[in-house]
Amino acid sequence: MQTATLPTTMKAAVLKQPFEIVVDTVPVPSPRADEVLVQVMAVGVCGSDVHYYEHGRIGRYVVEQPLILGHECAGVVVQVGELVTKFQPGDRVAVEPGVVCGKCDACRQGRYNLCPDVQFLATPPVDGAFAQYICVRQDNVFAIPPHVSFEEAALNEPFSVGIQAVTRAGVKPGDTVAIMGVGPVGLMTVVAARACGAKTIIVTDLEPIRLKAAMHLGASFAINVRNQDPVQAIRRLTDGVGVDVVLETAGNPEALRASVASARRGGKLAIVGLPAKDDIALDIPSIVDNEIDIYGVFRYANTYARGIQILSSGIADVKSIVTDRFPLVAAQEAMERARTNRSGSLKVMVYPND
Amino acid sequence: MQTATLPTTMKAAVLKQPFEIVVDTVPVPSPRADEVLVQVMAVGVCGSDVHYYEHGRIGRYVVEQPLILGHECAGVVVQVGELVTKFQPGDRVAVEPGVVCGKCDACRQGRYNLCPDVQFLATPPVDGAFAQYICVRQDNVFAIPPHVSFEEAALNEPFSVGIQAVTRAGVKPGDTVAIMGVGPVGLMTVVAARACGAKTIIVTDLEPIRLKAAMHLGASFAINVRNQDPVQAIRRLTDGVGVDVVLETAGNPEALRASVASARRGGKLAIVGLPAKDDIALDIPSIVDNEIDIYGVFRYANTYARGIQILSSGIADVKSIVTDRFPLVAAQEAMERARTNRSGSLKVMVYPND
Amino acid sequence: MQTATLPTTMKAAVLKQPFEIVVDTVPVPSPRADEVLVQVMAVGVCGSDVHYYEHGRIGRYVVEQPLILGHECAGVVVQVGELVTKFQPGDRVAVEPGVVCGKCDACRQGRYNLCPDVQFLATPPVDGAFAQYICVRQDNVFAIPPHVSFEEAALNEPFSVGIQAVTRAGVKPGDTVAIMGVGPVGLMTVVAARACGAKTIIVTDLEPIRLKAAMHLGASFAINVRNQDPVQAIRRLTDGVGVDVVLETAGNPEALRASVASARRGGKLAIVGLPAKDDIALDIPSIVDNEIDIYGVFRYANTYARGIQILSSGIADVKSIVTDRFPLVAAQEAMERARTNRSGSLKVMVYPND
Amino acid sequence: MQTATLPTTMKAAVLKQPFEIVVDTVPVPSPRADEVLVQVMAVGVCGSDVHYYEHGRIGRYVVEQPLILGHECAGVVVQVGELVTKFQPGDRVAVEPGVVCGKCDACRQGRYNLCPDVQFLATPPVDGAFAQYICVRQDNVFAIPPHVSFEEAALNEPFSVGIQAVTRAGVKPGDTVAIMGVGPVGLMTVVAARACGAKTIIVTDLEPIRLKAAMHLGASFAINVRNQDPVQAIRRLTDGVGVDVVLETAGNPEALRASVASARRGGKLAIVGLPAKDDIALDIPSIVDNEIDIYGVFRYANTYARGIQILSSGIADVKSIVTDRFPLVAAQEAMERARTNRSGSLKVMVYPND
Repeated sequence: MQTATLPTTMKAAVLKQPFEIVVDTVPVPSPRADEVLVQVMAVGVCGSDVHYYEHGRIGRYVVEQPLILGHECAGVVVQVGELVTKFQPGDRVAVEPGVVCGKCDACRQGRYNLCPDVQFLATPPVDGAFAQYICVRQDNVFAIPPHVSFEEAALNEPFSVGIQAVTRAGVKPGDTVAIMGVGPVGLMTVVAARACGAKTIIVTDLEPIRLKAAMHLGASFAINVRNQDPVQAIRRLTDGVGVDVVLETAGNPEALRASVASARRGGKLAIVGLPAKDDIALDIPSIVDNEIDIYGVFRYANTYARGIQILSSGIADVKSIVTDRFPLVAAQEAMERARTNRSGSLKVMVYPND
Repeated sequence: MQTATLPTTMKAAVLKQPFEIVVDTVPVPSPRADEVLVQVMAVGVCGSDVHYYEHGRIGRYVVEQPLILGHECAGVVVQVGELVTKFQPGDRVAVEPGVVCGKCDACRQGRYNLCPDVQFLATPPVDGAFAQYICVRQDNVFAIPPHVSFEEAALNEPFSVGIQAVTRAGVKPGDTVAIMGVGPVGLMTVVAARACGAKTIIVTDLEPIRLKAAMHLGASFAINVRNQDPVQAIRRLTDGVGVDVVLETAGNPEALRASVASARRGGKLAIVGLPAKDDIALDIPSIVDNEIDIYGVFRYANTYARGIQILSSGIADVKSIVTDRFPLVAAQEAMERARTNRSGSLKVMVYPND
Repeated sequence: MQTATLPTTMKAAVLKQPFEIVVDTVPVPSPRADEVLVQVMAVGVCGSDVHYYEHGRIGRYVVEQPLILGHECAGVVVQVGELVTKFQPGDRVAVEPGVVCGKCDACRQGRYNLCPDVQFLATPPVDGAFAQYICVRQDNVFAIPPHVSFEEAALNEPFSVGIQAVTRAGVKPGDTVAIMGVGPVGLMTVVAARACGAKTIIVTDLEPIRLKAAMHLGASFAINVRNQDPVQAIRRLTDGVGVDVVLETAGNPEALRASVASARRGGKLAIVGLPAKDDIALDIPSIVDNEIDIYGVFRYANTYARGIQILSSGIADVKSIVTDRFPLVAAQEAMERARTNRSGSLKVMVYPND
Repeated sequence: MQTATLPTTMKAAVLKQPFEIVVDTVPVPSPRADEVLVQVMAVGVCGSDVHYYEHGRIGRYVVEQPLILGHECAGVVVQVGELVTKFQPGDRVAVEPGVVCGKCDACRQGRYNLCPDVQFLATPPVDGAFAQYICVRQDNVFAIPPHVSFEEAALNEPFSVGIQAVTRAGVKPGDTVAIMGVGPVGLMTVVAARACGAKTIIVTDLEPIRLKAAMHLGASFAINVRNQDPVQAIRRLTDGVGVDVVLETAGNPEALRASVASARRGGKLAIVGLPAKDDIALDIPSIVDNEIDIYGVFRYANTYARGIQILSSGIADVKSIVTDRFPLVAAQEAMERARTNRSGSLKVMVYPND
């Protein structure tokens, strides 16, 4: 194992119980043979982090012991395990947070996001990246070029969700696309749709800051659902035809129903957003008569390298969506900001080594 | 135009108003230059025929003037238009009932089932095949080999729906498949799934006659939903995994919800059945978490030649699903049989020239 | 039929025999019921036009009577047939040159470029667009927005070939692509690859003007095969891996062999270029061991509307490839320029109404 | 680790140098934590085994030290590593011979057959299965049902190649397929094509025994290329159209050229056979004009479980292709039989524990 002058302890922001995050001093972990130790430079706060912070659980995933949150991260390799060949200390990297088995049916079929044995950062009981250092298996680490910042590299995680959505739904050059909900994932989905060559991108939300950010990233039309019926507006913008592809990231029943009603005949719909309640009434005859395809989207597979390629081309000013920045010691404040400032914040980011 | 000794008038069963079908004598139609005149030898009664018979409409399609029903048909070419090159009198043929424009976006993309200008037999205001002769454009006519009967050729229509479903859902050799609802379309879907190499085919229904017929056609397991919870039964039969593909033909909310719950992680669901009410509550988080694909299925495209190829291979005893046979003069009786004898009839067939 | 004040005769450049084009005065054609009459404003000279001009034939297509060449065209609708609903005089349009039957297997499957009954402009015996007016079936006519010039709209034809190539080969965002040969089709393929989100585009040719034009349109690296071995250069630029997709438009044996050798393991190759001789020796073990996909590309299907959408987004300065402009009376000069000035000309364009 | 009463030594047939196989007594290997020890009950002799036996190398794979050949195998689990959860002693299993890394790009994308770090049985320097016991990682082991014999399970290996070919080429129900060359892989490809629902299967070869075996397995027409031109015969059998899919397993130039000439317009060709020489001249204009797809086929991925499902359905009498059976001590004789008896043998099988 290569060595570097590393501290033996570090700071980590630990969720002790709902609404209580404490910055502890803990040992710096040691990489296993096939792992690298990454000094974490930027970590985005995700909606799932906030959900664990508030509720101590997401569905069947329950925080049963203190947990370090954060999974959208990038940093610098500072130490490598003895079998690591692809990286050396000093490499700047993005971290794909789900470490998979590589051997189950899902993994073998290239759909490793469905691996039942995935170890996903900040999903109980796996600790996340609100810490100064984390160990990551080398195949989950991706080099970033010099002109891509750590912030942008951390945004490759929500971008990956967007890429998975546009890939599953088959967005093609020249397509007309609607994106329902433009929180951070929806915003990165705007960029993903542009990367596929979408010509017209219609976004909907109820927060003006988000709609404005979407337009800044390249959306063509913004619909505030407080003021306009999205289905009528989308039909009007598409000469009554509907859009080729709808990407639903809002996770609420109205947006989902509007999604079905906004797709063209033969159109496609990717569902990214997780609604609070399970059952949502959908217009089945419309799905059948129009031969609509619907694709569930769960995390992502094979998107990380591709995402970095796209972001590094300077396709969009993605760092503009980082509205709030905090050091690690203010991790709880970061979480509160993300939780309470829906109208004023987009992506909140934490800098564990700043 | 080639000629044959043809009568000038014929019998046709005309729906005058709901529940009233009258057998009229009408002129034998003359084929246009690119049409053939088909002497109709067998016509299946479809659920949509029964629905028009009962309600005088299906959704936006309203019977506003007397209508000849029937669209699942086969017969013999007896006259050909002057531009017809592929057929001659005496040819035995199956008839694809939807004549499309060939020029719109949907047609150009090979999804002609979505053509907005389709002329579909027995869909108002287009007359259907409960008549001794019909004219059909030559590209909607498909030769059948000598050993395929007219009944089997007429069944190529519901079989086409099944082929569309398994094609959209991508059934592959060795797959485990569930078919929810085995009325005639579901039964033909069993055959379509077998043609794709499905290894295990689980069928559900509440009518024993249908379940028995499905087993006769090659299903592996039959679940009567009166006695068994289909989701539990399917999970048990698949070691808890769920099936690779679900094909929903029942068109009811319970079957649809069971469909979502029966698909494996990464599985696929084709919705064929049209439910009576529009909105059905679905478990969206399950669709998202498991990355399920859902495909609406509306009629079919590019299935007719393929269907005849498959049926002619003798893959299954499909004629066994014809339980009731009527001459044209008893068309109303045929309709009543199909309408009222859910527990005793499968496919009711009419023979206009018998 | 709507009327407009139209002349009764027009000028057309007619190929009488190889190397002899005469500008004749001929009647202005009348549109059939489903056709529009287009005043031709710009027509590109294609390599196939030059080939007919030189040799009087391309393979099995033989010029047996005087023929009007030209099939890459755009103009203004000046008259419409009585059944035409989508256009009116004054509409600015691009013309898709292949009119297909809409009824054969190929058409029904959405691969209408393989229609055996296609009527293709300037392919014997169908006259082309080196004329002041042409009649076109309305579904082959596509409206262009005000900011798209006639020149750009005419370039939608070679662009369509590029779109077909990238679509067949499945170029995806972030991909690394090589384009072998950057004549006009290759150049438009650069734009098509960019529209799909290709990150790195490597082009090869032996003409500096073409390589320079490719870089202007967005290529990343240009390789002059006179000075560099393309396989070595591509391997070096891809860290030895090879490219995700190769698009061969050069139509020569060396380029094709280099294409196979430049694809990554699991990569794809679309062959667009037609070589002069039929048989070319390929490295089969390399295709097998690396599971390379190879796709023949013949013209295009379903690309026209998409192409206009992409071009209208201002993705690239495509008009820059028009290097030579001629009025219709100088049609033979235009042809000679295209034929002889390989090192100095890219696209030669003719303006029949200038 | 579970234990069983196992011997400490076993017999293995070791290739010492070309044409010299010696049966040595060697230690029984011990499974690692995630491996099982399989008592080998049947091993097929593959063409690659014979090639190593004759030439000591295949391309860049060179036998530099004594090597145990054999990779088409099945047997009984007799011992399991401590982390093995899916198997226990007594389980009857088929063995997928390529153990992959699960972490590289190819593996992550589900194309693990292209993994550069694969450890493949009997590919130098990895020993194979001509031994009484072998260790295999648990995810490469697949349970077989009681009614599937060890011979049939060993045939799942060449069957997997066939499945890969039909999957890559997208064989669909009702398709017409040609299989060029029906050695053991070609014969198993007949079965794979039938599993996909192919209606008409035309096979070619020059050995009557192979053609007869293909017909026994379900081929529709057999063409002996000594007596008939395969292209003419296939055109005649398809009314001049050509076949939907060609599967080339012969690995010789004539068969490959006939393959291109036998595909229909818009048809597909999978190349499985490895020709002795690298470069083969193909008719490129025909590939381009007809938009033929060509797919290289290298081994297989995600076929093993599917293959067992299909074989266990009794789709064909696959054991009929085993023409020669030898005990392990006669391994060299088995190899000689396979090498020299092309006209009389199909699959030669070795039984290490018989």
